[in-house]
Amino acid sequence: MSLTVVGSIAFDAVKTPFGERERMLGGAAVHFSLAASFFTEVRPVGPVGDDFGAEQFEVLERRGILTDDIERVAGGKSFFWRGRYEFDLNVAHTEDTQLGVFAEFEPKLSERSQAADTLFLANIQPDLQRQVRAQCVAASFSGLDSMNLWIETAKDSLLAAIAEVDCLVVNDAEIRQLTRESNLARAARAVMALGPRAVVAKQGEYGAALFTESGYFALPGFPLEDVRDPTGAGDSFAGGFFGYLDGLDGEPDDVSLRQAMGYGTVLASFNVEEFGTERVSRLSREEIDERFEQLRSMTQFDGLAAPAE
Amino acid sequence: MSLTVVGSIAFDAVKTPFGERERMLGGAAVHFSLAASFFTEVRPVGPVGDDFGAEQFEVLERRGILTDDIERVAGGKSFFWRGRYEFDLNVAHTEDTQLGVFAEFEPKLSERSQAADTLFLANIQPDLQRQVRAQCVAASFSGLDSMNLWIETAKDSLLAAIAEVDCLVVNDAEIRQLTRESNLARAARAVMALGPRAVVAKQGEYGAALFTESGYFALPGFPLEDVRDPTGAGDSFAGGFFGYLDGLDGEPDDVSLRQAMGYGTVLASFNVEEFGTERVSRLSREEIDERFEQLRSMTQFDGLAAPAE
Repeated sequence: MSLTVVGSIAFDAVKTPFGERERMLGGAAVHFSLAASFFTEVRPVGPVGDDFGAEQFEVLERRGILTDDIERVAGGKSFFWRGRYEFDLNVAHTEDTQLGVFAEFEPKLSERSQAADTLFLANIQPDLQRQVRAQCVAASFSGLDSMNLWIETAKDSLLAAIAEVDCLVVNDAEIRQLTRESNLARAARAVMALGPRAVVAKQGEYGAALFTESGYFALPGFPLEDVRDPTGAGDSFAGGFFGYLDGLDGEPDDVSLRQAMGYGTVLASFNVEEFGTERVSRLSREEIDERFEQLRSMTQFDGLAAPAE
Repeated sequence: MSLTVVGSIAFDAVKTPFGERERMLGGAAVHFSLAASFFTEVRPVGPVGDDFGAEQFEVLERRGILTDDIERVAGGKSFFWRGRYEFDLNVAHTEDTQLGVFAEFEPKLSERSQAADTLFLANIQPDLQRQVRAQCVAASFSGLDSMNLWIETAKDSLLAAIAEVDCLVVNDAEIRQLTRESNLARAARAVMALGPRAVVAKQGEYGAALFTESGYFALPGFPLEDVRDPTGAGDSFAGGFFGYLDGLDGEPDDVSLRQAMGYGTVLASFNVEEFGTERVSRLSREEIDERFEQLRSMTQFDGLAAPAE
């Protein structure tokens, strides 16, 4: 089993009511890869500049992430994002975005990346997502994230990209915006009519909901008393979700998708406990499984459940 | 087992993107009582005017609701609320509120109302809530709802009222506002420090979360493709929740509180499918139990669960 993810590999400057960091490792493909690394072999694809050094590679490699498809562009600068959060941690206020080497990015995947069983297209321009999707002919399960910018500026490309994947993973507001349908259940059905067989609506602190042909499943966010930095929560969710599914034998079914929702929720919850990659980069599989069981018991109608088999 | 609820008994004028009603039966105690009537004997307490006639009493009495503590004030007018919702059905825009007979309301409970095992104080001025609480000495389980108005204008009274009940049931934003704590888990803990042993945070379409000394439980809203009028959803939730608990033998424990969250969610979901009391007033216990099992299966990690015993 192997998992390829394409997306930003970046430096972030973040300020929240609970602290700030002026320059830390970030980006969707980074958060995704760290989360997925607990379940499977993961290969991030994306460009970085000269400023991306041994220290950053080491964070990834210590978690067994395969970094040979991270393209280092000589003379270039890595993607940079600066944002802040007020007390409502659900809303990120972007203060600066510098695309750097991402502005010229043309995905050329190695044979190993192309051979992945599972593919995740993190939030990048939808035509780039389609280029990557076309190269990964072996992927039996693929997912896609996006954002309001592409719905507003490249909707046709985005709709075409969505039609080519198995699972859409976006915020619930984006599903509504994309389909111009205020009711989430109807909006999810409209997305499935485009092609995907599963739709995951991320809902910030309220958790996430899964729509499939045959059913509906929803999980609350894991209740934390200390949330310091929500940056990367959605990407960590996706990493836990697709990482878990890639680590299994066989095609995802309704049961494995539900379990994957649980692992996504758990990885997102660890991610937000500290800044950037700080918490997930020193996480253990034991901590993940322990929190997964706590989450399961928090959603049982009949009280504390027996541990999973 | 018997349940007393004090709160508004009203006429509502409501407009949503899906229709409008110029004058329909409403009010917190009405929505609560209808929902609770599927589980136990319920007695609403509150004043109405001459305009509240046989037609309105019949909606309640057909569901077995005991109306003898509804005080009919000669020459008075019933509470009236006019509001509208835009496509975001989570936000009610109030256009008119006429207190009518509620302006002079002084709760004087009959012996039967005072003898109730369970008491729910719907959203009214907190000093009135305290007067009612003091009269219901027999109640072994009591709950309270409130709103931002009382947090802003009568906070000390509200804190005193909260200290005297077992369970607070309010919107999550109100828990944050009340405690001046943005983190919901911390805010719920601060409420429990005042006295209640359970806190239910209503989260609109996202569902509801339950905090107790020993644990946390959360349920998504039931996913509906047709939501026509959200008015009374929170009161229907509370009615299903406290009605179910009152119908049981013995003190509520963590398991029965979780089941009650499920029944609250189910009753709220039926309530919003049509305007006002239209849907719940012709609901059956079989429909409730069927949707409860659907909700259970939507929250099972391992796929479709066996029905409850």
